[in-house]
Amino acid sequence: MTKTLNVAMIGGGFMGKAHAMAYASMPMFFWPAPAIPHRKVVVDVTDELAEDARQRFGFDEASSDWRAVVNRDDIDVVDICTPNNVHAEIAIAAAKAGKHIICEKPLARGGEEAREMLDAVEKAGVIHMVAFNYRRTPAVALARKYIEEGRIGKILNFRGTYLQDWSADPDGPLSWRFQKKIAGSGAIGDIGTHVVDLAHYLVGPISAVTAMTPTYVTTRPVQAGGQDKLGASEKNANAERATVDVDDEVVSLLKFENGAIGSLEATRNGYGRNNFITFEIHGTEGSILFNYERRDELRVMFNSDPADARGFRTVYSGPAHPYGEGLWPIPALGIGYSETKIVECYDLFKAIATGVQPSPNFADGYLTELVADALIESGETQQWVKVKT
Amino acid sequence: MTKTLNVAMIGGGFMGKAHAMAYASMPMFFWPAPAIPHRKVVVDVTDELAEDARQRFGFDEASSDWRAVVNRDDIDVVDICTPNNVHAEIAIAAAKAGKHIICEKPLARGGEEAREMLDAVEKAGVIHMVAFNYRRTPAVALARKYIEEGRIGKILNFRGTYLQDWSADPDGPLSWRFQKKIAGSGAIGDIGTHVVDLAHYLVGPISAVTAMTPTYVTTRPVQAGGQDKLGASEKNANAERATVDVDDEVVSLLKFENGAIGSLEATRNGYGRNNFITFEIHGTEGSILFNYERRDELRVMFNSDPADARGFRTVYSGPAHPYGEGLWPIPALGIGYSETKIVECYDLFKAIATGVQPSPNFADGYLTELVADALIESGETQQWVKVKT
Amino acid sequence: MTKTLNVAMIGGGFMGKAHAMAYASMPMFFWPAPAIPHRKVVVDVTDELAEDARQRFGFDEASSDWRAVVNRDDIDVVDICTPNNVHAEIAIAAAKAGKHIICEKPLARGGEEAREMLDAVEKAGVIHMVAFNYRRTPAVALARKYIEEGRIGKILNFRGTYLQDWSADPDGPLSWRFQKKIAGSGAIGDIGTHVVDLAHYLVGPISAVTAMTPTYVTTRPVQAGGQDKLGASEKNANAERATVDVDDEVVSLLKFENGAIGSLEATRNGYGRNNFITFEIHGTEGSILFNYERRDELRVMFNSDPADARGFRTVYSGPAHPYGEGLWPIPALGIGYSETKIVECYDLFKAIATGVQPSPNFADGYLTELVADALIESGETQQWVKVKT
Amino acid sequence: MTKTLNVAMIGGGFMGKAHAMAYASMPMFFWPAPAIPHRKVVVDVTDELAEDARQRFGFDEASSDWRAVVNRDDIDVVDICTPNNVHAEIAIAAAKAGKHIICEKPLARGGEEAREMLDAVEKAGVIHMVAFNYRRTPAVALARKYIEEGRIGKILNFRGTYLQDWSADPDGPLSWRFQKKIAGSGAIGDIGTHVVDLAHYLVGPISAVTAMTPTYVTTRPVQAGGQDKLGASEKNANAERATVDVDDEVVSLLKFENGAIGSLEATRNGYGRNNFITFEIHGTEGSILFNYERRDELRVMFNSDPADARGFRTVYSGPAHPYGEGLWPIPALGIGYSETKIVECYDLFKAIATGVQPSPNFADGYLTELVADALIESGETQQWVKVKT
Repeated sequence: MTKTLNVAMIGGGFMGKAHAMAYASMPMFFWPAPAIPHRKVVVDVTDELAEDARQRFGFDEASSDWRAVVNRDDIDVVDICTPNNVHAEIAIAAAKAGKHIICEKPLARGGEEAREMLDAVEKAGVIHMVAFNYRRTPAVALARKYIEEGRIGKILNFRGTYLQDWSADPDGPLSWRFQKKIAGSGAIGDIGTHVVDLAHYLVGPISAVTAMTPTYVTTRPVQAGGQDKLGASEKNANAERATVDVDDEVVSLLKFENGAIGSLEATRNGYGRNNFITFEIHGTEGSILFNYERRDELRVMFNSDPADARGFRTVYSGPAHPYGEGLWPIPALGIGYSETKIVECYDLFKAIATGVQPSPNFADGYLTELVADALIESGETQQWVKVKT
Repeated sequence: MTKTLNVAMIGGGFMGKAHAMAYASMPMFFWPAPAIPHRKVVVDVTDELAEDARQRFGFDEASSDWRAVVNRDDIDVVDICTPNNVHAEIAIAAAKAGKHIICEKPLARGGEEAREMLDAVEKAGVIHMVAFNYRRTPAVALARKYIEEGRIGKILNFRGTYLQDWSADPDGPLSWRFQKKIAGSGAIGDIGTHVVDLAHYLVGPISAVTAMTPTYVTTRPVQAGGQDKLGASEKNANAERATVDVDDEVVSLLKFENGAIGSLEATRNGYGRNNFITFEIHGTEGSILFNYERRDELRVMFNSDPADARGFRTVYSGPAHPYGEGLWPIPALGIGYSETKIVECYDLFKAIATGVQPSPNFADGYLTELVADALIESGETQQWVKVKT
Repeated sequence: MTKTLNVAMIGGGFMGKAHAMAYASMPMFFWPAPAIPHRKVVVDVTDELAEDARQRFGFDEASSDWRAVVNRDDIDVVDICTPNNVHAEIAIAAAKAGKHIICEKPLARGGEEAREMLDAVEKAGVIHMVAFNYRRTPAVALARKYIEEGRIGKILNFRGTYLQDWSADPDGPLSWRFQKKIAGSGAIGDIGTHVVDLAHYLVGPISAVTAMTPTYVTTRPVQAGGQDKLGASEKNANAERATVDVDDEVVSLLKFENGAIGSLEATRNGYGRNNFITFEIHGTEGSILFNYERRDELRVMFNSDPADARGFRTVYSGPAHPYGEGLWPIPALGIGYSETKIVECYDLFKAIATGVQPSPNFADGYLTELVADALIESGETQQWVKVKT
Repeated sequence: MTKTLNVAMIGGGFMGKAHAMAYASMPMFFWPAPAIPHRKVVVDVTDELAEDARQRFGFDEASSDWRAVVNRDDIDVVDICTPNNVHAEIAIAAAKAGKHIICEKPLARGGEEAREMLDAVEKAGVIHMVAFNYRRTPAVALARKYIEEGRIGKILNFRGTYLQDWSADPDGPLSWRFQKKIAGSGAIGDIGTHVVDLAHYLVGPISAVTAMTPTYVTTRPVQAGGQDKLGASEKNANAERATVDVDDEVVSLLKFENGAIGSLEATRNGYGRNNFITFEIHGTEGSILFNYERRDELRVMFNSDPADARGFRTVYSGPAHPYGEGLWPIPALGIGYSETKIVECYDLFKAIATGVQPSPNFADGYLTELVADALIESGETQQWVKVKT
């Protein structure tokens, strides 16, 4: 019989919503499920917030004491949906308590912190995962399949972007995402790491970078309490302002260990772009394009096609593609953010059930942090910086 | 305190999955929820199937006796996810038992059957809804908002399509969708009614039609038991074949009561199209385009724009648009099929909580059936046919 | 040695410009050219206009007397770029004088007039061509190649549109295009015939139609003399207005002789559409899409592709495609209106050089007029109308 | 009366074709023309080739002696369409002879050579132009207009690409474009300079770069005589091979004098890309996108749009946009490569007629060469390199 595993989720914001939905829905999609997630305890910063999250997200219990919760015997999985500054503390405690862990991205505020987290989970022998959900998009998994099967040959060039515009307005609030002590970095950690994760997934390890990391909006209105609301936040031109000490954008060149080259650009100030995660990969036998804003689609060009019918194919992911057995019965019924999180949940519980580490795990997340560190350093030194693996 | 309502879901196939996910997820998205759905009983054709569905979809109980279930005192909402041929019987019984009802589309196998269903729910005074989920796509709701606000002027022309290709292969199985006695019609009822629903939602009632309704694949392999799997079905060139007695495609012209004109095309045999629900609407002040395969986007052109910057805007639905308060905090995080069903569920429970009928309700579904009847009749007579309202 | 042929061009407006450019450029592209066009005489309605056209378009001589010109011994080709109402008179005179003829579309103001023109050229034994240039777009010729080679199987359905918006503004002037006595019809003849021509080229003869043909803007400001300027015309809300007696739009269903079905929509009142000539063709083995607004591209889907890489290919026309030997050395350098007219000119002079009638010739243009007549009749009777071949 | 100017065109290949077409067509489009180009003499490397070009391109005379031709008294304009290695010699001779000059891009094989050319034309006081035709695309000129009018605010970021795939096949011939002594550089000079020109046109001078400049295909089959045919060239896997000594690709970051940053990528080895010249520009009030493969379109987003209708507009260039008075009477009739060259020709002759230097002139071309030099140097040193202005 399928095992049920109790989940403690720390953090009840936007990510808590996405994760709770996935816990409830995953077995409906991937059935028989590798294991059944049970929403046992949700933790938030106050009892009131936690109780509200409990009702909203369908957990059995609420708590404002994450330390107590992660040490409970009846908890199997700890899910970290907090701001970045407490990822390490919670993860290390959960590892010590022998819990399997999924941690929201970026794993940490830099390589050093990530290294400690990785050491902790490896020592504890638990399953660990970082929630870089975009590689769970079926079209992205299909890109990986094409590459693994050699269908576009040897990779020459990877060009990745993550462009948003929710912080382009200088009067958007100074949420934790603009504070180095909480977030570690700005666009680099928040969204650039997603591109690094995709690059690692599709091409291989990045070995060196050169970058520019400007801050365009140097002060922002102090946030009047409450949660980060991203694009739904109130603008307030009249509020007191404080300093932004993280990057608004990173524009960079990449070298990969396998000889491929590339570029990475991430910004939250690119008007008109919403969640514009793209990659273009040129190989010796073909090319692949992806744009998350049209995430049902993967575009692929095979040079082996006949001369009069050569061009990018637009493939809509569906039953014939990765994760197709669990999702919708025809292509283009629709992959949303929900579906990416349901797939992520499936891969996590499959890992726990089989004992095989999923990917990206904390080792992958650590590598990504090292690249983020290199991007920050290069932004300061204006030199090529080797990734310190 | 928010009320919890017990749901009995009849049918555990693809639609059961979508609905169960929505029951679990809706309050997580729209919070505080108007009411909380509780997955009480799931019904399938055998006890075994029902028990499997119970575990998979997280219901308390399983049953193979829908009659008993719809008459239980502890059931508040009956959800009909069966093939079309039992919609009426279940709905009428549920209405008599005083239950609120959501019924999958199309409402019935024609206007007559739909009329009986409508009479039953009106007599019972319950809340009733038809699951035309595509109008719940936020971008579609945004189109409606633009139209209601007069931003494209008076509507001249509506062009709607629903193109798929999952049945283009002549060796796809003869599922219930190809049998008139179960389905009522072919592409007309299965997918054409979605376009009729969108036309009614955005433009107003259709008053007359002229149509062609060819059947391209006249025999198909008899299905070896089990559920309809749409695009994931096995092809079987060697199986015994039986006759298809429904349309594969409908191509038609439309007249609306308000004087607008239009066209409707629906096929399941259009290679390369997956879930290609589109509309193009021309008004006296602008135009609107939508393509569900890129459902995060609505395209709108306002003639009032300055001459040197006039063109279709691609608007990604998000917090600033309909249902934005409950979905994701920035545009293009991603609307999938899941999100459309979560919104549908929200509108159903809001209707129950407020006592105001949702739309499309059975009256809307009945009108849609009358248009479907007219399309079928016109396909036979090759004449313009008035919708018999 | 390559022969030089003297051209007399009647009409110096927008079409005169396009044709003159083609005469000058064609041999530069298709070299060795089948024959060299020499710009001998240009004719316009006054001597002054003709002299201006002569200088502008690089002709040797100017004239305001087309009758005299078409009877000159030193003229080999007569090119009719006038409004529709004088096509027949000029063409018949030119045929009698034994000249090869290219006539702008639509061939005539209806089938009867076209029949007379066809009789005249057949009797005279000259080469004749109708300037439906859009089928000369290399991507369209590629579609024809795919179809002829059976690569999308048997055609089931053709959906064609030609949508523009230059006449959507009710204050656009009452040019000859809105006057039945000059134009014959409105959107039907002006742009709908282009779609009919594409349908005939790609699918085969249309046998019956049913249509709606509304006039949305029933009066327009009287034009203050001068040429039709289409989208560049001045709007004048205060001018005296007169009645529009042609259709603004045609929306129709089609039956083809070979059993295929389809639809055709043409409007000049569709805000946001500029020169939106599209077709979507579903076959038993694949599908083809085309949109002239992105005319370098043809999209094609082959069902024989592997299950995990099936989807529309976007093929950019270039050296490997029809007319590629004469156009640009890589795809996407760019096909513009100029290039379509250069190809048309090439096919005309190849026909003259070889003595093999080009397509579309007056026989094709006559069939197109018969379809236009049927569309007009159906718009009036609201019945299916057979094309009177 | 409009003046006629005699043109001597040196080089009769692909570019000769494009220029000859423009000389013939320009006055037809822009009328009254600022001056009338007369095709006087065409020069090629042998008398035979020159005579063929004369007939094909409609020149009065043919010659294989460019020195003699550029010194003829009856020549007003010298047009240099040769490979890069003779640009300087011809241009300097033409300048000394007092001729106005248009030179194909890139201006030279580096900054030093370009400097000599610039000195020569400035000393001679002639009109000079470099044929970076892509900025003549009406949609690109519209982007410039928006920027100049401040409609997207201050520019933060420019991302430009020029991706092709005609040299991705390792068996494509070793044309002059792969030989440093003739071409100066590879993708940098051939196509990257077009992006530099666009960046200079739209944003301003580039001040520093960091780059990678790999050569992927290090040997190629020796070309068996004859002209470079780009994408139409014969592949020959069995021919003797020789070394490629130029870059196949450049991937780089940019700093602009005005504080903006950016990136530039150019390759001729990106399978599936044909003439993929793109830019994305983020400003403080909006953004602009362009893709030459869909060159009729400019996409622009204004942050000032209402919250519920914000997104990129797709504007089709036409009569309301730059050069609209001379091109086609409605948008999307079609801008091809021809139209860009006709506009270029117009701007050249307007400059000659008015005595005001056009842009880009040799001073602009010289700056572009300095950026190319910096890209090459950075590719070698792997350091940020300042542009040596």
